[in-house]
Amino acid sequence: MTTGRGKIPVAILGATGVVGQRFLKRLADHPFFEIAYLAASDRSAGKKYKDACLWHLGGEPFAGYGDMVVSACSPDSAPAPLAFSALDADVAVSIEAAYAKSGAFVFSNASAYRMEEDVPLLIPEINSDHLGILERQQARRGWKGAIVANPNCTTVMLVSPLAPLDRIFGIEAVMATSMQAISGAGYPGVSAMDIQGNVIPHIKKEEPKVESEPLKILGRLLGTGVSASFASSHFPVSATCTRVPVIEGHTIAVSVKLKGNPSVEDVVAAMKSFEPDTAGLGLPSAPERFLAVSDQADRPQPRKDVEIDGGMRITVGRVRPCPILGIKFIALGHNTERGAAGASVLNAELAYVKGALALAQEEYERRTA
Amino acid sequence: MTTGRGKIPVAILGATGVVGQRFLKRLADHPFFEIAYLAASDRSAGKKYKDACLWHLGGEPFAGYGDMVVSACSPDSAPAPLAFSALDADVAVSIEAAYAKSGAFVFSNASAYRMEEDVPLLIPEINSDHLGILERQQARRGWKGAIVANPNCTTVMLVSPLAPLDRIFGIEAVMATSMQAISGAGYPGVSAMDIQGNVIPHIKKEEPKVESEPLKILGRLLGTGVSASFASSHFPVSATCTRVPVIEGHTIAVSVKLKGNPSVEDVVAAMKSFEPDTAGLGLPSAPERFLAVSDQADRPQPRKDVEIDGGMRITVGRVRPCPILGIKFIALGHNTERGAAGASVLNAELAYVKGALALAQEEYERRTA
Amino acid sequence: MTTGRGKIPVAILGATGVVGQRFLKRLADHPFFEIAYLAASDRSAGKKYKDACLWHLGGEPFAGYGDMVVSACSPDSAPAPLAFSALDADVAVSIEAAYAKSGAFVFSNASAYRMEEDVPLLIPEINSDHLGILERQQARRGWKGAIVANPNCTTVMLVSPLAPLDRIFGIEAVMATSMQAISGAGYPGVSAMDIQGNVIPHIKKEEPKVESEPLKILGRLLGTGVSASFASSHFPVSATCTRVPVIEGHTIAVSVKLKGNPSVEDVVAAMKSFEPDTAGLGLPSAPERFLAVSDQADRPQPRKDVEIDGGMRITVGRVRPCPILGIKFIALGHNTERGAAGASVLNAELAYVKGALALAQEEYERRTA
Amino acid sequence: MTTGRGKIPVAILGATGVVGQRFLKRLADHPFFEIAYLAASDRSAGKKYKDACLWHLGGEPFAGYGDMVVSACSPDSAPAPLAFSALDADVAVSIEAAYAKSGAFVFSNASAYRMEEDVPLLIPEINSDHLGILERQQARRGWKGAIVANPNCTTVMLVSPLAPLDRIFGIEAVMATSMQAISGAGYPGVSAMDIQGNVIPHIKKEEPKVESEPLKILGRLLGTGVSASFASSHFPVSATCTRVPVIEGHTIAVSVKLKGNPSVEDVVAAMKSFEPDTAGLGLPSAPERFLAVSDQADRPQPRKDVEIDGGMRITVGRVRPCPILGIKFIALGHNTERGAAGASVLNAELAYVKGALALAQEEYERRTA
Repeated sequence: MTTGRGKIPVAILGATGVVGQRFLKRLADHPFFEIAYLAASDRSAGKKYKDACLWHLGGEPFAGYGDMVVSACSPDSAPAPLAFSALDADVAVSIEAAYAKSGAFVFSNASAYRMEEDVPLLIPEINSDHLGILERQQARRGWKGAIVANPNCTTVMLVSPLAPLDRIFGIEAVMATSMQAISGAGYPGVSAMDIQGNVIPHIKKEEPKVESEPLKILGRLLGTGVSASFASSHFPVSATCTRVPVIEGHTIAVSVKLKGNPSVEDVVAAMKSFEPDTAGLGLPSAPERFLAVSDQADRPQPRKDVEIDGGMRITVGRVRPCPILGIKFIALGHNTERGAAGASVLNAELAYVKGALALAQEEYERRTA
Repeated sequence: MTTGRGKIPVAILGATGVVGQRFLKRLADHPFFEIAYLAASDRSAGKKYKDACLWHLGGEPFAGYGDMVVSACSPDSAPAPLAFSALDADVAVSIEAAYAKSGAFVFSNASAYRMEEDVPLLIPEINSDHLGILERQQARRGWKGAIVANPNCTTVMLVSPLAPLDRIFGIEAVMATSMQAISGAGYPGVSAMDIQGNVIPHIKKEEPKVESEPLKILGRLLGTGVSASFASSHFPVSATCTRVPVIEGHTIAVSVKLKGNPSVEDVVAAMKSFEPDTAGLGLPSAPERFLAVSDQADRPQPRKDVEIDGGMRITVGRVRPCPILGIKFIALGHNTERGAAGASVLNAELAYVKGALALAQEEYERRTA
Repeated sequence: MTTGRGKIPVAILGATGVVGQRFLKRLADHPFFEIAYLAASDRSAGKKYKDACLWHLGGEPFAGYGDMVVSACSPDSAPAPLAFSALDADVAVSIEAAYAKSGAFVFSNASAYRMEEDVPLLIPEINSDHLGILERQQARRGWKGAIVANPNCTTVMLVSPLAPLDRIFGIEAVMATSMQAISGAGYPGVSAMDIQGNVIPHIKKEEPKVESEPLKILGRLLGTGVSASFASSHFPVSATCTRVPVIEGHTIAVSVKLKGNPSVEDVVAAMKSFEPDTAGLGLPSAPERFLAVSDQADRPQPRKDVEIDGGMRITVGRVRPCPILGIKFIALGHNTERGAAGASVLNAELAYVKGALALAQEEYERRTA
Repeated sequence: MTTGRGKIPVAILGATGVVGQRFLKRLADHPFFEIAYLAASDRSAGKKYKDACLWHLGGEPFAGYGDMVVSACSPDSAPAPLAFSALDADVAVSIEAAYAKSGAFVFSNASAYRMEEDVPLLIPEINSDHLGILERQQARRGWKGAIVANPNCTTVMLVSPLAPLDRIFGIEAVMATSMQAISGAGYPGVSAMDIQGNVIPHIKKEEPKVESEPLKILGRLLGTGVSASFASSHFPVSATCTRVPVIEGHTIAVSVKLKGNPSVEDVVAAMKSFEPDTAGLGLPSAPERFLAVSDQADRPQPRKDVEIDGGMRITVGRVRPCPILGIKFIALGHNTERGAAGASVLNAELAYVKGALALAQEEYERRTA
């Protein structure tokens, strides 16, 4: 499936952080992509990667890239036809735009462009057709490249089990209480003095994302080419986001109101029979199973279930009646993989297989010839 | 306020467990009551208290009762006009009845009698008038004594902030997701292998209690004397109960639908101005403040807020609009104090001050004269 | 390297516990061995494995053996030429002997036979020649099979870095303070009420094992055949064993007095250049690197370093001068792999490659023919 | 015992941090001292205290001083005859000297002056006579005020149980492995990503302090007045300092070589009968019991034992033979009270009662009259 030209060179933007390190690990031996640049803030640029950050993950330290010199975060310093962004939202705004303008495709975990009307908020298994907005994005902004966003880490775990329910029954309301892992706050992130043996019932700026992003993801793409646009879904989402002393894995208690008030059995069947858009595409980061429904009374649990399928599986459990909204259940997923680095890489794999990256690569090769 | 007869002798049933130890600590130097018996299972009876259990609490080991010999759990072995029960529900059924039959008043943390139609499910600040059912209980069962129950530890934290809202606005629906402390499972209770760095999204038999008990507590007492009866409230409660790695303190994310859709300001005002039934009664275990509303963005937090007011305060925070039910907030309280031992002791203090215990004491003195 | 006869059938004794499950995971797809029986206490025997225990590990639940029916722990109920024992010491005494008598080779994680004069206490990388005691064991006890023990989980992490130092310099004294993981206490094992946010500075019966086992492991095998015997090493070991809130991985602070007071550099060189006895044998469970020395100032750390090399690597760090004994360092290893299941399996692999299991297998085939 | 002049006004230097907050809590209602200034870095100066920091402790938020405006850390901005310093060592050097020069007495938790030859490293129960060096300090440095240091938080827990052993038997060598709480690193201090479910086997710059400070503390004061000097003790101390996921309380595994190799019974008797120098002085922060010896097999434990006696008690357990050095035991104490804020306050109370503060106060009153 690789092109005759070999692997596409990529830049990792924000390579030193918790999500950036996940990008390295996923891309270190990827069949489509090849790490060409590790880019980070000016504080890190110029240092060897191993001197610029503390390696948080298991396996080979620095994914074998310890001696690579860190670049500054710009298409001049780290030119590549493909960039993965683990940048903070505030700096992502201009840096990601600069890359897209330069002709690169940016697969971004930042929130900066997620809700823009011409940027796909992509979960390949659910709304792969939303990639169709890119032509409009390029036309509207005058970019040769493009930005593709993945959702907030909590949104992914919430919307994944909702997708089959929306497709089959239609959603009328969603109530969600999350118990989120500390890795979601990055590094050093949460002080141990705050979270040890504790619950922090608030995560800054999180609830508005969880309440708005699902409507875009579950919305429809209308029109084609430069006339494409999104028609957002319309139902209320009410979120409470809390932090708990868990390393990896966001757990969400969800109640949902569905049209026609389907039974628990029907809901479970809908989830189990969901056919992801990615079926048969052979995407390297796609999980063997996208959405699993556990029948154990006390699962899913983050420490025990989160690593399965390379952290790319969503596990649902305790599907049961809700006396108010009709159905309730628990959803779990790996926040820095399914909800961050893995999500972006899967997005890029989808774009690659759909042919969307070919032009970027050609343009890049012409420039660098 | 103590009687001329001195303190009332009490038996602690289930004295060796996590809640039993809290009873000891609260009663070791109580102005109304005096520990006369520490009763526990046959495995412990006959041993010195310090040899029968591991002391889990701070302060003086065994609350100074280390050398008291543990009695069996029966009114013959541990006769007292007043008993505090930290028994498991299955054994509580017969033991508590035997005490009540013997003429004793039982203040019980067990779930065995909570939902019985003639047993008060008491939170003194909220439904102190429910004590009025006792005459009917005694008449109906032929008991000289009586059983008074306190609610499940999660119910208390949920229903306390709801009480002023029900009184002022009227409740139409309640959705609750709890994050419960490990102490709620007793000792040894939860294995560290299960809960460390984890969330367990299920607590056996917990959700049905949280979904039913509030309706009785917020219900009305109709009639008087032997004709008294409860008129339960009617609104749906939907609960998801989870366990998190916290030692003490249940945190609950609550959404509530109120009649007339009051504003956040009105709701906060209702909570802040709530006058507990216990005001002015001088109950020794009553908190200085029953219901506090925090205005810090990330409070209440169990490890930081739970011990205030001897663990008897309920703290609410993050009162804000819910796009589905109207209002949402966070509630927190100390599960083994406000939700267990402290709750039972406060119930007994109310009964004492209301004069309900005088007959039991007289009867006891006559028998033991 | 497998025999013409195919894989050797094995029984796992104590298959339902924390270590038993590790055995399943390691043996589920082993090139030499094949799981034939899962044996456990009478309480579990007759049930399907998935109904007999809670699966604690990641990956495929029950390692794919969920539907195998659990056998009783005896050579009649679970006959196999090879048994892996995760039994408690008190029941291991008779059950392991019964297996050995029946002709089976038992690779045991139990402490029951560890210090017996005719039982090898084996770490294949260190004292592989101790297998030479088996002929004496069989002659002395009239067994056709044999018992091979692996050391206590803390002993392994302590003695592994000591072995090269003893070989090159000679040891005169060892002081060790361990910080041990909760998995070492099995399941349910340690109550979360005891260990959360805490240190328990005592582990029952642990220190005597850590103080005595190294002397046997580092001792010499004298003589051959039925006249073989062990000459124990002679130096004092002083151990303090504590429990800390870590899931997997025992960390040990070690001080050691060596003959000739070698420098830190010499000690590091000795560790790094240590050639394990297993080099070149192709044992499937042998780590790529037996003993690693980290040069990072704050490593090794259990949560970050313990899983490397399938949990079979020992990592040492902070080698530095000790003003009292001469050298001090930190050692870390995976207690339920390197210190338990993985240790036993590696022992069996060594015995297999050395040909020691061939007779057991033949005898078994003759019996079952 | 208060002077006719009323309480002495004090400044708290570094008032916003973990230790600074402990100072506030201890001094908010102190019989000798009165908080006059909360001083902190320029970043905080000018803000209200409640806006300058997050309050980490229980009880009344900000100890009631939330509205006090924070001063800069200098004797001009925060003039007081008495200062408590929770400053970092690097800034403490000049700021503490400026205070001492201005005539103030500084009771410091910083390491800056601890090992200076003319600064007492004080534990009032052990070496109260070391205050006698102050006249020399003032003469040598030309200060009207003075600096009194308390030891490193780990040193205190180590040296307290050693003091009676040194007095009665004489110490020849000490080996210590600490398991230290995260609060010792301040706030935000340790990242939860680093310490959750983990052990960090290194604490920067800690071991040299633990290896040197005990020798000064247990040394003798020679001479008097301006000719006074310290004669340090001479024995090797070997320390390994680790961080564990505990909120408060440093646990230390100690082995000690004593002259004459006394028995365990003799050692326990020496600890139990130790008469602290503070006996009978009525110091408000002195614990009811300075040094307790537990006879429970698994105590002391930080989460369960550390708060006793206001955090000012040292608890020892597991006194037993060490096959290498003779005696080993476990010691525990509260690192931010006994090892920091409480230590400094107790030092000041001793100085107050000994009359050492009277001149400072008079000088201050003259200046400010």
